[in-house]
Amino acid sequence: MGKIITLTTDFGEADYSVGAVKGVILSINPKVRIVDITHQLQPFNLISAAVTLKNFSSYFPTETIHLAVVDPGVGSKRKPILIQTEKYCFIGPDNGIFSWINEPFQKIIHLTNSKFFLNPVSSTFQTRDVFAPVAAYLSLGVKIDEFGKPISKIAGLRVPGVQFKKNKLIGETIQVDNFGNLITNIRPENLKKGFKTLKINDRKIFKVSHTFSSVSQGKILVYWGSAGFLEIGINCNNAAKILKAKIGEKVEIEI
Amino acid sequence: MGKIITLTTDFGEADYSVGAVKGVILSINPKVRIVDITHQLQPFNLISAAVTLKNFSSYFPTETIHLAVVDPGVGSKRKPILIQTEKYCFIGPDNGIFSWINEPFQKIIHLTNSKFFLNPVSSTFQTRDVFAPVAAYLSLGVKIDEFGKPISKIAGLRVPGVQFKKNKLIGETIQVDNFGNLITNIRPENLKKGFKTLKINDRKIFKVSHTFSSVSQGKILVYWGSAGFLEIGINCNNAAKILKAKIGEKVEIEI
Amino acid sequence: MGKIITLTTDFGEADYSVGAVKGVILSINPKVRIVDITHQLQPFNLISAAVTLKNFSSYFPTETIHLAVVDPGVGSKRKPILIQTEKYCFIGPDNGIFSWINEPFQKIIHLTNSKFFLNPVSSTFQTRDVFAPVAAYLSLGVKIDEFGKPISKIAGLRVPGVQFKKNKLIGETIQVDNFGNLITNIRPENLKKGFKTLKINDRKIFKVSHTFSSVSQGKILVYWGSAGFLEIGINCNNAAKILKAKIGEKVEIEI
Repeated sequence: MGKIITLTTDFGEADYSVGAVKGVILSINPKVRIVDITHQLQPFNLISAAVTLKNFSSYFPTETIHLAVVDPGVGSKRKPILIQTEKYCFIGPDNGIFSWINEPFQKIIHLTNSKFFLNPVSSTFQTRDVFAPVAAYLSLGVKIDEFGKPISKIAGLRVPGVQFKKNKLIGETIQVDNFGNLITNIRPENLKKGFKTLKINDRKIFKVSHTFSSVSQGKILVYWGSAGFLEIGINCNNAAKILKAKIGEKVEIEI
Repeated sequence: MGKIITLTTDFGEADYSVGAVKGVILSINPKVRIVDITHQLQPFNLISAAVTLKNFSSYFPTETIHLAVVDPGVGSKRKPILIQTEKYCFIGPDNGIFSWINEPFQKIIHLTNSKFFLNPVSSTFQTRDVFAPVAAYLSLGVKIDEFGKPISKIAGLRVPGVQFKKNKLIGETIQVDNFGNLITNIRPENLKKGFKTLKINDRKIFKVSHTFSSVSQGKILVYWGSAGFLEIGINCNNAAKILKAKIGEKVEIEI
Repeated sequence: MGKIITLTTDFGEADYSVGAVKGVILSINPKVRIVDITHQLQPFNLISAAVTLKNFSSYFPTETIHLAVVDPGVGSKRKPILIQTEKYCFIGPDNGIFSWINEPFQKIIHLTNSKFFLNPVSSTFQTRDVFAPVAAYLSLGVKIDEFGKPISKIAGLRVPGVQFKKNKLIGETIQVDNFGNLITNIRPENLKKGFKTLKINDRKIFKVSHTFSSVSQGKILVYWGSAGFLEIGINCNNAAKILKAKIGEKVEIEI
């Protein structure tokens, strides 16, 4: 039975891109199993892509190859990379998309061996010409070291910064998950001086809770989310809808 | 060769949900074949989901497992269930989504055996934590009775009611299919007193036809659809567009 | 291992259509591998479908069956056809969708043998009732000649015509690809008298380039695209966005 390659992109489905990627993979390894995660990620939103990847990838069987591409920097100099963890391999651009994966990295390879690329490599469609064939050859059993040179670290994800004004911290929402929970850009180190209240769209919350069930159904809560950011949710309801909040909503914390 | 699990949801494709469900299934049964029907059903529209399920499911091979989730009642007390018919198994919430399936039910199981669930079961993502693993274990050959307790009936689907005013019946459109045919909430029992005319958006139709070809191309017709409701269509054209009609459009019948 | 059938349609994903097509195929050949290309092509846009098909199909392994349907003429008299090329088979309506395929045709069959159709064939859903079962039986090894009668040519694609006014040629954009390149309706035979300048949205380009790298990054270029039309692009950028151009944009050439 063939190995699994998952696909996670912002390519949309109005043109030939997804088809070309699948065709390249199946031409190299006709036995591999391609699993669509999504091709409808918000275009160029690396934070959304990193959250998605972090949240679904660990449910897959050991040896799954996760190909993930959201790439605002096509044509720029970010490296094409392959990351090996204990259970998986991840393939895509080194632009921060992989920076929130849960497992420790065992090896990072800068993909430089053009023997495993389509020829020629276009300047605009590296997923078809580099990532897809590398994923397919990897699924055939090619050793990781053959694809390029080991490097020691990957790019982090640039998240909008928080601001401090007197006794206030001003942050913002950077992502809304499927259940309407609002992920902010606020990290634990930003709250070393304490937490009095959080205000978003004229609603105030007075403490940081541990779990959803810490508050009764329908109540707003603030909690530390699994991506390491402060999140705002409602027990058994959709916080984004109830609070009329989108990505980029201002979040004000008294500290 | 692996069994087939079909997926029919309103999850959308902007986040990790579909990926998590597929990962859970493939981790339990790496040989199963997952077939996407759609993840773009109108959110929370149980009627649309029930019509979809009714219309595609019977084309699949015997022993297919149909996992279908549109679930406005996440967090409420509707039961997670498994339905066995002669040819298929259906898995999802007991909220009416399965009430228009064509085949007689052989067995209904309330899914209670947490041995086959992810642990812990989240309050917000039962599809990943209950339905997906149950579908996967079922595809591995686990006997139906092991998943829980037999129950005798499922929830029906609440459809907006029709109203009677003197010699008029007032109904509404509850669904538009892919070809623009308008499905109303009017059932045969509502028309026991006869049918004189049907009016929708200032267009009148004077009889109930048997088939599309009963009228010439481009003509409007009223007919009994395969879901048991009165439908309005146009032979070889899109009734919703031509009549400028959406879900919730008023339909007036003189009886 | 089963053969591959790719699916390329404008059916959308809000109803049961895609599910019915997949069910029909898997009921006839449970071993076949179905690969979704897209179900989100612009509805009824044959040019977009033809460009998509041309651009992804050749990446697939030999013996892949490409089922492609965008069909503004459902109910009209266009033929259902099967095209055999050296590497592939293509199945769908004879309405121009296949007219830009790269490879020479070896055989064209008008699908007339109802033995391989669902019974009855509906007037509105030929993909489920004719194309899907024919693709499935073909994947099982049925010989091409059994499906119907050979014909000698397929329908071409009607592209909006260009106009000549004195020393000017007026064309228009007919498609935007995934990278924002604008495909016009201008063919080499329209430019026999030469090319002085091309104007689109107040931007002028003074020559026809051979490749993207003929101009520096960020510069606009005009070039002959792989579909045989004049195209407008920007090296390493999105021409449609930068030029604020959509499908149907006026293109003026001084000749």
